[in-house]
Amino acid sequence: MVYEIAEIHVRPGAEKEFEAAVRQAVPLFQRSRGCRSMELHRTVETPTKYRLVVGWEALEDHMVHFRGAPEFQEWRKLVGPFFQGGPPIVDHQQVAVKGF
Amino acid sequence: MVYEIAEIHVRPGAEKEFEAAVRQAVPLFQRSRGCRSMELHRTVETPTKYRLVVGWEALEDHMVHFRGAPEFQEWRKLVGPFFQGGPPIVDHQQVAVKGF
Repeated sequence: MVYEIAEIHVRPGAEKEFEAAVRQAVPLFQRSRGCRSMELHRTVETPTKYRLVVGWEALEDHMVHFRGAPEFQEWRKLVGPFFQGGPPIVDHQQVAVKGF
Repeated sequence: MVYEIAEIHVRPGAEKEFEAAVRQAVPLFQRSRGCRSMELHRTVETPTKYRLVVGWEALEDHMVHFRGAPEFQEWRKLVGPFFQGGPPIVDHQQVAVKGF
């Protein structure tokens, strides 16, 4: 399991609309190959800064299959209008220490 | 529930020792007030970049009680020697959209 972490900055004032668009986009992830979980996290200190956390079975499920699928275009069409300062900064993480 | 996200950069070559130190530190978090979960995530693209994800019942459990406790000093003593480029960048997040 690999977690996509996308840091997203949203235009001030557009937070509620952005969150509604993410809610609307949930089925796009649910029907994507290898997608196992999806959550949106909001930063306490900077309420316009979010992290999208998506669990994929393999890196390729995100980077090859999802990015090449119409679902990615639909996702960007839904949430793109709320981005500030360009597209999200994306990396991938794996659990190194599972404490508790 | 609020999640502490600490972005930690580790000296190249020190990754295994750092992970072992984090494993050793698990009980420090387990016995801290309001601490509900703790995991260390490693970045696929940049293997010296980690995220520590700690679940706290309230922001104060982290920022006031933990930061003021001897457990924080012990944590920093264990993992501090492996940091590169200064102390971690810390923020806090809450779930905005629970997809699936």
